[in-house]
Amino acid sequence: MKTVILCGGSGTRLWPISRKSTPKQFAQIFDGESLFEKTINRNKSFSNSYTIVVNELQLPACKKQILSELEQNTDYLIEPIGRNTAAAIALAAFASSSEEILLVLPSDHLINDQSVYEECVNQAKELAVKNRLVTFGMEARYPETGFGYIEADGNTVKSFKEKPDLETAKKYVESKNYYWNSGMFCFKAKTFLTQLKQHSPEIFDQAEATYKKRKESGNITDFKVEEMKKIPSLSVDYAVMEKSPIVSVVPSSFHWSDLGSFDALYEELPKDENGNTESEEYCSINSKNNLILGGKRVIATFDVNELIIVDTADALLIGKKGESQKVKELLQYVEKIDEKLLK
Amino acid sequence: MKTVILCGGSGTRLWPISRKSTPKQFAQIFDGESLFEKTINRNKSFSNSYTIVVNELQLPACKKQILSELEQNTDYLIEPIGRNTAAAIALAAFASSSEEILLVLPSDHLINDQSVYEECVNQAKELAVKNRLVTFGMEARYPETGFGYIEADGNTVKSFKEKPDLETAKKYVESKNYYWNSGMFCFKAKTFLTQLKQHSPEIFDQAEATYKKRKESGNITDFKVEEMKKIPSLSVDYAVMEKSPIVSVVPSSFHWSDLGSFDALYEELPKDENGNTESEEYCSINSKNNLILGGKRVIATFDVNELIIVDTADALLIGKKGESQKVKELLQYVEKIDEKLLK
Repeated sequence: MKTVILCGGSGTRLWPISRKSTPKQFAQIFDGESLFEKTINRNKSFSNSYTIVVNELQLPACKKQILSELEQNTDYLIEPIGRNTAAAIALAAFASSSEEILLVLPSDHLINDQSVYEECVNQAKELAVKNRLVTFGMEARYPETGFGYIEADGNTVKSFKEKPDLETAKKYVESKNYYWNSGMFCFKAKTFLTQLKQHSPEIFDQAEATYKKRKESGNITDFKVEEMKKIPSLSVDYAVMEKSPIVSVVPSSFHWSDLGSFDALYEELPKDENGNTESEEYCSINSKNNLILGGKRVIATFDVNELIIVDTADALLIGKKGESQKVKELLQYVEKIDEKLLK
Repeated sequence: MKTVILCGGSGTRLWPISRKSTPKQFAQIFDGESLFEKTINRNKSFSNSYTIVVNELQLPACKKQILSELEQNTDYLIEPIGRNTAAAIALAAFASSSEEILLVLPSDHLINDQSVYEECVNQAKELAVKNRLVTFGMEARYPETGFGYIEADGNTVKSFKEKPDLETAKKYVESKNYYWNSGMFCFKAKTFLTQLKQHSPEIFDQAEATYKKRKESGNITDFKVEEMKKIPSLSVDYAVMEKSPIVSVVPSSFHWSDLGSFDALYEELPKDENGNTESEEYCSINSKNNLILGGKRVIATFDVNELIIVDTADALLIGKKGESQKVKELLQYVEKIDEKLLK
């Protein structure tokens, strides 16, 4: 099985840790490991090879984190511009032999419970061998309105649902038949390409042309921007999964987070504990439940609680837990001060 | 009249702006000006010369801020170790001609209302000419428990009071006959030395010996540490003012702050205003009434209020307004992380 890792995404919702050239998946904030590294490691035991689809801006950050032992089994598909997930997966499929099973994963998700994860991957692989397009449905732990949902009955997909409003999301969670659409997939290269050709022929044709032109040019290091531009920019859900009759779902109960905001990150990382003076990075008096991400300088606090404090070399973010969706709006103002701070 | 500026004090209560080698009086946080520079400028119109008593650690920071036009009228008395204000003033008095009138000022106070200030200085000078030891009593605007008080009737001192508890402080403020003891003085050099000799002869003798040894050595740039050590470390209030029968007070109503904490600084400096996105240093959403001292990097906030945020190259302080007395305790922990952060 080949693991295809999609590294796209500018990840500005976790600014200033996440920048265009070094998005969140490369930030080594989980005991010194990044989400990208965790994704690589999580799949090492059952992956023969890796294909990494990455924007050329992010390639240096990406290459730095590939373990030397994996280098010879790793290919890079370098996109000059992002054209969404349908195009990225199509290019990876063209770069694979037709019977090869692809496990397609975002690079920026956090997953715990390795053994449950491996069980789910095995189940997906069995379905993929039988020429199914497999998507992973995450147990909906709370009524998140930022995700799409999959209505399922066992491995059977009954319907895909757009991001719901809160009321609808609550009903989904209560009914137990709805799963978060995770953006993780498993299928044979040829199964995917056949379905893509059938349901989104323009993407298939332009992606094929883009892939062939790269091969012909003899320069296999990247794709031409003028060719990439011609590929319609569509998510794989819209382009294939929601239209294909051969989709299966693997209901998955491992702990999963897309870390789409500092509030999501807040749930996953250790918080400041009052009186924690053993740290080499911060100390506090009468402060607790603060998420402190730093390492650039010593941080000292008194009488603050439930703050999100993110300290980097050139930017400092301080905000209140529960309000981190405002980061996106805040970035418009940051950009006015100095647009380089977003790069 | 000669202005004697006392630059001692490690000023750690305003850490991390204030460090041992660059205490608060040299931080250029008042429209780009420091308290030291403000003190120099405030007295320019009536000072013939300046004597600056400064610790050798702080001398570089100090010299950098002396205007070139004043250099030739400025003398430095460089202390290898601090021996409190009685010793510092004694050394300055020995370095002056005996009839010279000394206006003795801390370097780290904020004073507004220049014309009221000048009136008070003139009043003090008139009393000093008549061989009085003059202290400035500040209108007690609120029941501060961190200051000593002077009970007065016109220019007559009735008593000096130690730092009171809150109840007592409230009574002082209500009675209108009590003033904050500001640590500003005015007297002839010889008046001071005569009274010092009478009330604290040991300080007088050791300070005189220290001063003479420096002169004899031909090295007039500093005092010997072994000589300084012999001078008893006592405040001028304890050593002279509270004992002398020839003390007068000038009740003063100009706006004055000793900026002894971030909460005091909070009162004097502009605060973050919600939506203030014109700044080149910070931007915010749904945040206001934050004191933000930075300039080292862009600071972005959301949903925080009444915070004290102090950002420097190697340390970041974040705390709640009203609790800044905790900085002193916090520094014990900072010191454990890296004692260099206090230097």
